[in-house]
Amino acid sequence: MTLIAERLLTKLTDAERVRMEKVESVLPALREAAAKADETGEFPIGHIALMREAGLLGLIIPEEFGGLGGGLRDLAGATFTLGSACPSTALAYFFHNTSASRGLLPLEAIEAGLFAEDEVPVIDAFARRLLTKMAGGTWLANFASEEVKSSSANIAIATIAAPVEGGWSLSGVKSFGCATGVADYYLVTAKVDGTETAEGLALFLVGRDYEGVTNRPKWNGLGMRASANDGIIMENVFVPAEDSLTVSGSFVKMLQMSRGSFVGNQLAIMATYLGAAQNVYDYALERTTGKTFADTGRTIASSPMHQVIIGNMAERLETAYLWIRRQIELETSEPPLLPKAEVYKQWRIAKGDISEACFQVALGALKACGTSAATMDGVIGRTLRDLAMALVMTFPAERGRLEAASMITQDKENELFASVKS
Amino acid sequence: MTLIAERLLTKLTDAERVRMEKVESVLPALREAAAKADETGEFPIGHIALMREAGLLGLIIPEEFGGLGGGLRDLAGATFTLGSACPSTALAYFFHNTSASRGLLPLEAIEAGLFAEDEVPVIDAFARRLLTKMAGGTWLANFASEEVKSSSANIAIATIAAPVEGGWSLSGVKSFGCATGVADYYLVTAKVDGTETAEGLALFLVGRDYEGVTNRPKWNGLGMRASANDGIIMENVFVPAEDSLTVSGSFVKMLQMSRGSFVGNQLAIMATYLGAAQNVYDYALERTTGKTFADTGRTIASSPMHQVIIGNMAERLETAYLWIRRQIELETSEPPLLPKAEVYKQWRIAKGDISEACFQVALGALKACGTSAATMDGVIGRTLRDLAMALVMTFPAERGRLEAASMITQDKENELFASVKS
Amino acid sequence: MTLIAERLLTKLTDAERVRMEKVESVLPALREAAAKADETGEFPIGHIALMREAGLLGLIIPEEFGGLGGGLRDLAGATFTLGSACPSTALAYFFHNTSASRGLLPLEAIEAGLFAEDEVPVIDAFARRLLTKMAGGTWLANFASEEVKSSSANIAIATIAAPVEGGWSLSGVKSFGCATGVADYYLVTAKVDGTETAEGLALFLVGRDYEGVTNRPKWNGLGMRASANDGIIMENVFVPAEDSLTVSGSFVKMLQMSRGSFVGNQLAIMATYLGAAQNVYDYALERTTGKTFADTGRTIASSPMHQVIIGNMAERLETAYLWIRRQIELETSEPPLLPKAEVYKQWRIAKGDISEACFQVALGALKACGTSAATMDGVIGRTLRDLAMALVMTFPAERGRLEAASMITQDKENELFASVKS
Amino acid sequence: MTLIAERLLTKLTDAERVRMEKVESVLPALREAAAKADETGEFPIGHIALMREAGLLGLIIPEEFGGLGGGLRDLAGATFTLGSACPSTALAYFFHNTSASRGLLPLEAIEAGLFAEDEVPVIDAFARRLLTKMAGGTWLANFASEEVKSSSANIAIATIAAPVEGGWSLSGVKSFGCATGVADYYLVTAKVDGTETAEGLALFLVGRDYEGVTNRPKWNGLGMRASANDGIIMENVFVPAEDSLTVSGSFVKMLQMSRGSFVGNQLAIMATYLGAAQNVYDYALERTTGKTFADTGRTIASSPMHQVIIGNMAERLETAYLWIRRQIELETSEPPLLPKAEVYKQWRIAKGDISEACFQVALGALKACGTSAATMDGVIGRTLRDLAMALVMTFPAERGRLEAASMITQDKENELFASVKS
Repeated sequence: MTLIAERLLTKLTDAERVRMEKVESVLPALREAAAKADETGEFPIGHIALMREAGLLGLIIPEEFGGLGGGLRDLAGATFTLGSACPSTALAYFFHNTSASRGLLPLEAIEAGLFAEDEVPVIDAFARRLLTKMAGGTWLANFASEEVKSSSANIAIATIAAPVEGGWSLSGVKSFGCATGVADYYLVTAKVDGTETAEGLALFLVGRDYEGVTNRPKWNGLGMRASANDGIIMENVFVPAEDSLTVSGSFVKMLQMSRGSFVGNQLAIMATYLGAAQNVYDYALERTTGKTFADTGRTIASSPMHQVIIGNMAERLETAYLWIRRQIELETSEPPLLPKAEVYKQWRIAKGDISEACFQVALGALKACGTSAATMDGVIGRTLRDLAMALVMTFPAERGRLEAASMITQDKENELFASVKS
Repeated sequence: MTLIAERLLTKLTDAERVRMEKVESVLPALREAAAKADETGEFPIGHIALMREAGLLGLIIPEEFGGLGGGLRDLAGATFTLGSACPSTALAYFFHNTSASRGLLPLEAIEAGLFAEDEVPVIDAFARRLLTKMAGGTWLANFASEEVKSSSANIAIATIAAPVEGGWSLSGVKSFGCATGVADYYLVTAKVDGTETAEGLALFLVGRDYEGVTNRPKWNGLGMRASANDGIIMENVFVPAEDSLTVSGSFVKMLQMSRGSFVGNQLAIMATYLGAAQNVYDYALERTTGKTFADTGRTIASSPMHQVIIGNMAERLETAYLWIRRQIELETSEPPLLPKAEVYKQWRIAKGDISEACFQVALGALKACGTSAATMDGVIGRTLRDLAMALVMTFPAERGRLEAASMITQDKENELFASVKS
Repeated sequence: MTLIAERLLTKLTDAERVRMEKVESVLPALREAAAKADETGEFPIGHIALMREAGLLGLIIPEEFGGLGGGLRDLAGATFTLGSACPSTALAYFFHNTSASRGLLPLEAIEAGLFAEDEVPVIDAFARRLLTKMAGGTWLANFASEEVKSSSANIAIATIAAPVEGGWSLSGVKSFGCATGVADYYLVTAKVDGTETAEGLALFLVGRDYEGVTNRPKWNGLGMRASANDGIIMENVFVPAEDSLTVSGSFVKMLQMSRGSFVGNQLAIMATYLGAAQNVYDYALERTTGKTFADTGRTIASSPMHQVIIGNMAERLETAYLWIRRQIELETSEPPLLPKAEVYKQWRIAKGDISEACFQVALGALKACGTSAATMDGVIGRTLRDLAMALVMTFPAERGRLEAASMITQDKENELFASVKS
Repeated sequence: MTLIAERLLTKLTDAERVRMEKVESVLPALREAAAKADETGEFPIGHIALMREAGLLGLIIPEEFGGLGGGLRDLAGATFTLGSACPSTALAYFFHNTSASRGLLPLEAIEAGLFAEDEVPVIDAFARRLLTKMAGGTWLANFASEEVKSSSANIAIATIAAPVEGGWSLSGVKSFGCATGVADYYLVTAKVDGTETAEGLALFLVGRDYEGVTNRPKWNGLGMRASANDGIIMENVFVPAEDSLTVSGSFVKMLQMSRGSFVGNQLAIMATYLGAAQNVYDYALERTTGKTFADTGRTIASSPMHQVIIGNMAERLETAYLWIRRQIELETSEPPLLPKAEVYKQWRIAKGDISEACFQVALGALKACGTSAATMDGVIGRTLRDLAMALVMTFPAERGRLEAASMITQDKENELFASVKS
């Protein structure tokens, strides 16, 4: 049996194949619920139990903590597969998984000797607690983003954690986060009261129904409408000490262990969108090769205009695959093919190219299928809206390329200055 | 006072100015209703009375028939203006106006001597009846399109009109037509029973509530949702003889009088979309220059990425203006600047360029304003969806360019053959 | 007879028609010399006498000074016409004509009352002298550019003029200037020794063979090879007082009178390139419609690939016409359609769009005609190289759009601040 | 030591590394000769001895025949490396190597049992003779193309081989072929007199100086000028029987063994162009980061316009790498990742994307470096011209995508018909 993920990943191992089969087992339910979920803008609540029962909440948790032991390839394969059926669910699932990095990277940082001896037990305990929870079937939303913007491009954190008896008191607003009101726990990034730098960033597990936690007003998104992205408001929310990671500098050290950008699995978001793009491409081909002109009896797809559009779609779709496959290769190969800075630079460009290419596939499908298929609730309309979100999520292509240019020319400038000194 | 239409049209005459002021008088109501109309997908029924009272139903009807005496510039100015507030209403209003061509072109054809002496009174009577009705406040939907597709690119008409006592009996399905269930009358194109060519095409005025007329299922469009595009089914619908134009060959002769493509005012559809593009551009500029970065205090619009996107948007928007202004010039100048075939070819390319450019403006606005503005019901989301329809309505850019290429090279081939003969 | 310039300009007046006929009279000679001129990179020296005899050196000089009395439309029409035969000659001819601005704008500035009473006679004398010289058959090269680059985007002038007995002594290097070694006089922009701002900029007429004037090394350009662009080196070159305009502030006041960017006729450079683009388009159509496939007998142009390329070429070519026609309209209409700042902004975008579109036409022609036409000395190869220069001359499209964006958003920011104050 | 080829190929084996070092050994000579070779349009004759002495004429000939034993990866790595110094030489070298396919593929076809028992010894002898010759230091030009065009896209062969005493007599014209007048032998494809189908195609080794062989007029190419592409005219040229492969059907059977398009190594042409693109990218970066603005002291590369251009160049360059690396993977992986038809389709799109991307890199470099670098003989001018040839060589991108579309939709149509039957 050919798995959907094999369109993206080559040479699946047997273990990967088993995991991808688990992913495919939930697809029929996702497909059936997708249109309704988009229409109502509600996360299909039943999907959580479904995925929990399939063991998928522990997809990338090591087996020693009770997980399935998958890696970045699995995560990308899973979001790709799910994205071909319901991109909203795939996105929320991605953010659940990304929480795992807050357990895995600290453990790597300990091994790399980045922490002092007395810090190790605290870090280790939090990491294990987090990973075990996830493997055990707890859905974790990952809440970092806030509304304020900084030109220096980092995510700006204004949420404050103040120490209180037995733990911490959190106050702030998280503007965006999948699985709002749905996840069991929210993994919240905040700054320890009184700190000013990234050294003071800390992590907290906030229960969905904790006192002081409320949902922000419902976000009526253009696409990815069923990902429950509303975000939350926290007012003096108590979090027990054991559910926090507040060791000074731990956040920064953790990020150092990432192989790519940020926490090192951002490419799996793009795999979600690519899954959706493949789906709309298949739909357009099936529709245009399945109808014929009344006069000639030839398929609609055979018209000169359709041939042009289909050729362009094929090129765009394949371009997206090339960029994401390369990124997966760069972030998983042992030993690393390129230094981390190069991997990061490549990602900034890749993100834009993949999202633009996927969106162009949807536009091509729209044109190929014409007015009659341009409905709000059909595959064309839903995918076009979902993929429009890819263009803005995190950052647009124009910004990624500018960031890459800055890295490229500053490297060069530095090199030059260095040679002048000698 | 600067009028919105002046962004599109240069050197308004006094009479044009008066007409455009009437158009602007209805704008506040359109603006207020736009979001709700999009959400529900319902044509705001009150707009009809509003426009009737402002005299706008006779905008391009000559004064001798009781109209405002406007021309193609007025129509484009009006749809542009209305499109900046509610593109759906603007589109439905366009199709009402386009009905006027079925009165004006026949009158021109009479003057050009295209009709036999005995045909003239019949043609003349129908034309005057139609124009007087419109000027008198009757909203006319214009129903031509049907679902069947022909590779030879003409609109294929399968609706049949059979002669019956005192008039005609119509049966068929019109797949697309603004103001379904809303217009007072539907102007229906059908073929006289037993005919096989365009000579047999005929026109009929079908009352909205005539027996045998039903609406097709509601069309849940991706955009232009409030234009009531559902279309109708006619089963043995009786139309009195006086409400028909069935003279053999009259449809074809009428089209010969058009200065541009088809009935000669298609460019006003694109003016609708351009109005929407200007609106989303203004919105994006206002939003990004009205917010600042927390760290530098500079506007969001000043970031390198925003400068790139805004420069591109400005270029795209202006490109759309250039194409449409040229088309207006080509279709209104006296004497004509170019032969009709050239005007037609130019239109095939222009339609694509304008719609692509407008859509790119909306995409730029989406990227500039980011995730927080990417909502279903905000200006960004609505305009992106509305402008997506521009890409497929009538035909996509790819087809227009291929048609132009075919005209260009066949001209050339013919020229060459001609020179070989001599 | 249809004139070539009518492809660009609509509604030629009788006087314009007479002038354009003069321009066309030199075309056969230009066409014949073009390939050789490109190959050798030598300005065809005979063209000067040819154009002088046709009276074309005074094309845009008012009749009162002995010129033909043409305006910006004539200049664009002329460079377009000449550009269709030999773009290098057209470019050099453009720069000759642009010298006229240094006579015409000062006269306008006098009328506008920008100069003090005692300055007027000096300014007036220089202007008349310059214009009379040009109308009398003197070819004037216009040397402004120097090699140093400033991030603040103005042309940086380092050439210095020091006062000496009876006139001025000039020293400096002009890096780029058409008609080096060919023009009768070089119109040189320099700064008066000791000044630091634009107030100190001054103009000088430097004879080609003056002592101390030498040509820079021959510039082996990729395209526009026969425009004699080498530039000059001046070492203590004496210029008599009467051949100088050194009134403090005169340069700046002169520029204020321009209707568009800089000296107000830059668009005629783009007309040169557009003429070349039209020529390569015509060539490609003729070639591909004039050859047939051995198996089907159909023209090469009829292949699906050729239809796509030809449709795209037609669209690109027309886009270039639209932008340049609009710019001509904006810079010649009375009263002005838009404020000068808007005209300037439009030009920054237009320049990029026209040059990109023209270059794309050449690329399309290259692809349509294939390897066998991709020769160094054929129309395809020469035009591709000539049009590549359009991409870099003055500034690339990317910069024009960024400048426009900066103007757009700063306007907006200012507007916003203004409204806050009230 | 990092090898140039490692920019393209990952994980070089030790043997590959040794071969790539041999390739790099000739680079200094190629670099030094490149500008002059372009200017004069002459193949640098000394390069042949240079490459022969380095053993490079047997690069992809198996060791058993005396070659270096390289494969497709080596060939691509070599043309990439050489292309970064002198694309013309790289291209001619590519065509020498491609001759090897006429020895290797027949041997594979024998193993696959495609030939009858009595044919085997003849085929085998020719193949071994060819491969041994190449490994022994004979430079083989590969002459297939002729001038006639067929809409059905195959190379049309009109050259005729008639049997004569002791061998064959060849007459015909080969319109394009690298190393004309330079190679030791021309490998000529011709049809056996009297045959009408591909079954009659045959191969002949024609000595450069054989009687009846003359060069066509010198081809004055826009780019790739030093590849000696002129082509030859053959009039009754005698070829001894042992230097021919005339077994009926042998050409077709040979092609069946290819893993990709045609003879299975076309991607190495694109590697040539990619090498040139990498070189012009490096040049542009070095130039713009090595000069500064006079006023700010910051590098030219730091300007907003340059950042945009550099970001775009980086994206385009990487896109070209992605497509070619994938194609290498598809054509070398064991077992094959995709069926041959898919590999072929991918190549049709890849060829266009790679050439367009490489050309865009050159355009970006042109813009970034400005007018002063836009010379005929500099890196910018030469590379822009060389890469323009990539756009037309074999076929343009537009055609590749249309061919892919045709394959895609016909597959689909066939699939559909198949399912209808069952």
